[in-house]
Amino acid sequence: MADARFFHRAGPFLLSDIAALIGAEPLPPETEAIAFADIATLETAGPDDISVFSDARYMGALATTRAGAIIVSRKLAHHVPEGSRLVYVADPRRAYAQVGRLFYPAAVPTPGIHPSAHVHASACIGPGTQIDPGAVIGRDVDIGERCYIGPNVVIGDGVLIGNDCRIGANCTISHTLLGHRVEIETCVTIGSQGFGFVPGPAGLERMLQLGRVIIEEGVKIGANCAIDRGATDDTIIGAGSVLDNLVHIGHNVRLGRHCVICAQVGIAGSTTVGDGVMMGGQTGVADHLTIGSGAQIAAKSGVMRDVAAKTVVGGFPAMPIKDWHRQTIGIARLSKKVE
Amino acid sequence: MADARFFHRAGPFLLSDIAALIGAEPLPPETEAIAFADIATLETAGPDDISVFSDARYMGALATTRAGAIIVSRKLAHHVPEGSRLVYVADPRRAYAQVGRLFYPAAVPTPGIHPSAHVHASACIGPGTQIDPGAVIGRDVDIGERCYIGPNVVIGDGVLIGNDCRIGANCTISHTLLGHRVEIETCVTIGSQGFGFVPGPAGLERMLQLGRVIIEEGVKIGANCAIDRGATDDTIIGAGSVLDNLVHIGHNVRLGRHCVICAQVGIAGSTTVGDGVMMGGQTGVADHLTIGSGAQIAAKSGVMRDVAAKTVVGGFPAMPIKDWHRQTIGIARLSKKVE
Amino acid sequence: MADARFFHRAGPFLLSDIAALIGAEPLPPETEAIAFADIATLETAGPDDISVFSDARYMGALATTRAGAIIVSRKLAHHVPEGSRLVYVADPRRAYAQVGRLFYPAAVPTPGIHPSAHVHASACIGPGTQIDPGAVIGRDVDIGERCYIGPNVVIGDGVLIGNDCRIGANCTISHTLLGHRVEIETCVTIGSQGFGFVPGPAGLERMLQLGRVIIEEGVKIGANCAIDRGATDDTIIGAGSVLDNLVHIGHNVRLGRHCVICAQVGIAGSTTVGDGVMMGGQTGVADHLTIGSGAQIAAKSGVMRDVAAKTVVGGFPAMPIKDWHRQTIGIARLSKKVE
Repeated sequence: MADARFFHRAGPFLLSDIAALIGAEPLPPETEAIAFADIATLETAGPDDISVFSDARYMGALATTRAGAIIVSRKLAHHVPEGSRLVYVADPRRAYAQVGRLFYPAAVPTPGIHPSAHVHASACIGPGTQIDPGAVIGRDVDIGERCYIGPNVVIGDGVLIGNDCRIGANCTISHTLLGHRVEIETCVTIGSQGFGFVPGPAGLERMLQLGRVIIEEGVKIGANCAIDRGATDDTIIGAGSVLDNLVHIGHNVRLGRHCVICAQVGIAGSTTVGDGVMMGGQTGVADHLTIGSGAQIAAKSGVMRDVAAKTVVGGFPAMPIKDWHRQTIGIARLSKKVE
Repeated sequence: MADARFFHRAGPFLLSDIAALIGAEPLPPETEAIAFADIATLETAGPDDISVFSDARYMGALATTRAGAIIVSRKLAHHVPEGSRLVYVADPRRAYAQVGRLFYPAAVPTPGIHPSAHVHASACIGPGTQIDPGAVIGRDVDIGERCYIGPNVVIGDGVLIGNDCRIGANCTISHTLLGHRVEIETCVTIGSQGFGFVPGPAGLERMLQLGRVIIEEGVKIGANCAIDRGATDDTIIGAGSVLDNLVHIGHNVRLGRHCVICAQVGIAGSTTVGDGVMMGGQTGVADHLTIGSGAQIAAKSGVMRDVAAKTVVGGFPAMPIKDWHRQTIGIARLSKKVE
Repeated sequence: MADARFFHRAGPFLLSDIAALIGAEPLPPETEAIAFADIATLETAGPDDISVFSDARYMGALATTRAGAIIVSRKLAHHVPEGSRLVYVADPRRAYAQVGRLFYPAAVPTPGIHPSAHVHASACIGPGTQIDPGAVIGRDVDIGERCYIGPNVVIGDGVLIGNDCRIGANCTISHTLLGHRVEIETCVTIGSQGFGFVPGPAGLERMLQLGRVIIEEGVKIGANCAIDRGATDDTIIGAGSVLDNLVHIGHNVRLGRHCVICAQVGIAGSTTVGDGVMMGGQTGVADHLTIGSGAQIAAKSGVMRDVAAKTVVGGFPAMPIKDWHRQTIGIARLSKKVE
């Protein structure tokens, strides 16, 4: 079970209620009234815990599990030892995530503004919103309902924040419009000046950065990311996209919807990324490119040209992934021949 | 036009005044008294806006622009449709940046120390300087005139800051001397302990990090960067250099003047970089190297040897850029032959 | 000497005391009572300073040094000009680090909680601990003795911190157990939600992140790092390991003891790293891998497969370092032939 120092568990819950939540197949009636106290992995589960089997790699743990019930798909069910209590669903991983949120519901904000927070008189704070110690909320800021603003967060003048957003401690947000249900981890910068300079007689002169950042609804942003505001157009993070830690997004980047951007990725200025794009960790994408919807970019790639929709690329410079694998093998062979 | 939530526009301004500011060629006298209300891109400009045409790539927008006047060079002027009102300068991009600062002047600090800031009694704060809520200013700190110190910034004991500096929210600066007109975005660390250890009987023991960071005048540092202080010598960022987001600078690095360091670059300890060096995003430079003045390093390079002045390198390991391009092509051909 | 603005020097100290501290060979009796005022490099040392010669690369400085005494090994002593006062030890670099800590002892916390810090009534703060302005200490937090908690640090509910820890300004720590003598630089995130999602009908749904971060004793973490908490298991940083700046550690990563992780490294989720592993800067390690104890990974490597204990790998994809060097040379030759 999760450490009670950090996680507050609800329940217990009846198996019938759990099954209804996740749209499971009908249960044997005699099991419906069994109560479960927690979720747990196959290795650690006991008779009061509900667990999941979603991948044949975990067959070893399955053989010896003491779980009181196992969420499983019809496809994988034949692996399960006889006598186990099974809950059938189409997508066990997703069902397990849902059950997890039942036992460990997201923290609800405690409405109110801490007396040590600095909220400008012109700011508008929605009902149900919690503002923690040391937060600084600027002029004309508008924060929606049921938001959580962590300690020492700094929200610049004019920023608009939707409902049900969570902004972690020590973040700085300026020149930004946030949609509903946006979640931002800690130490994140959003709205900083982009990196645009023009040579002058006394050195580099900064180009004005007069755009904004638009974070659409449901976006999740990892810790210590930096997202620059636009120079002329806006920087946009499309609805439902998720960013891991330490990601850099340059000015005027337009990231589509439901993208998955892994840790330490950098996307340079004015690049447009379609919907549903996946980028592996430490990938770099050059400026002014177009990455088509559904493209997948392998970890640590260096993307120097446009990527067509639904293609898979990898390597540095990035190329179709099959070419990269072939090159990797080819180089190994060739360099042996040379000796 | 820029979003009035975030940007405060000055003006309108007479075309004669704009032309004088940017050193334009003499205007037709009948146009001098025309007033302009804003700057705008060719696509979005209306009759009251002044725009710019600086690159033949934007010819499409030029054909249909409604801009009231266009800043342009003699060289590109023949692309402009007849009947447009033109303002001739030698460097349109730079002129446009200057006009931008006329319409959107940098915010002037509101002098004063917020009552919730913690300023040590021994600190010296210059006239015109603004210190925001929650900032913590240590013992014997000396801050110049007209500086802006953002919310929750932490300035360690003894730090010296010049005039007209801007330090964004949630930055931490220690063991550092800052020149005039230094601009630092948010969540930046400057002056942290360098990464030097020596094996001992109980594990790694830290080498003392007794140097400082010296940031010369006019330097601009992006969000979430980390710059270590020197171990014995100082870490130095030369005058006028600009760093993008999430850059790492190791201890004892000496970066020259007017360098351009793109996002997520890392420069390891004790490397010396000359003046006017450009490094593309995600480049890594190993420790104890010398990078000559005017060198250019392509994005995502891995620099493992010294780089001569004025050379252009790329790849991993970094090599002359022509060699890298040749290798990239050669590998593609060879790996096809092998099959 | 170190800048007195930032570093407070102790001493002077007798050579006999210095020699005893570092386990030096017996000195000529007539030198034992000589007092030294400071440490310094060979280049900058004067007669009152003690210096070190630990590497033949510095022979130039050795020839002209004015240092009052030089710490040196028997092996390198023949390089030293006659007439120099020598202090013989087996490991001069380590001895010099020890002498450095004698002259520049680590700052001792000034016990007490600043009135502007927000410490929850249920938190337990050990004797000798200093809590700086604006720090926010959550419910049921337990902080040991003689700790330093910097300005605007945010410690989430339930976090446990051992004795003699140092947490730099603007850090955010949640869901974490810290051992004794842990040192964390500034703007660091520890305990953020890991990057795990499962597709649902309305887009990506977050997998619950119910694990913790366990930082064992003596760990040192650089500036602006981000360490995610576990999803089901814990994320673990083993005793004595050191992390440089801007490092990303994914959920469920288990890093062994006495590892050296250079700047901008990223280790993806659920990877297990043995003891004494070294990773060069900007290295990326894919998820669910096993890196054996004593392995060394060259800078900027992309590790896509398990690495056996005590092996040295490099390149992208990472391979045995000799293969990578051979490939690098082979490619250069082959691509010339192709032309």
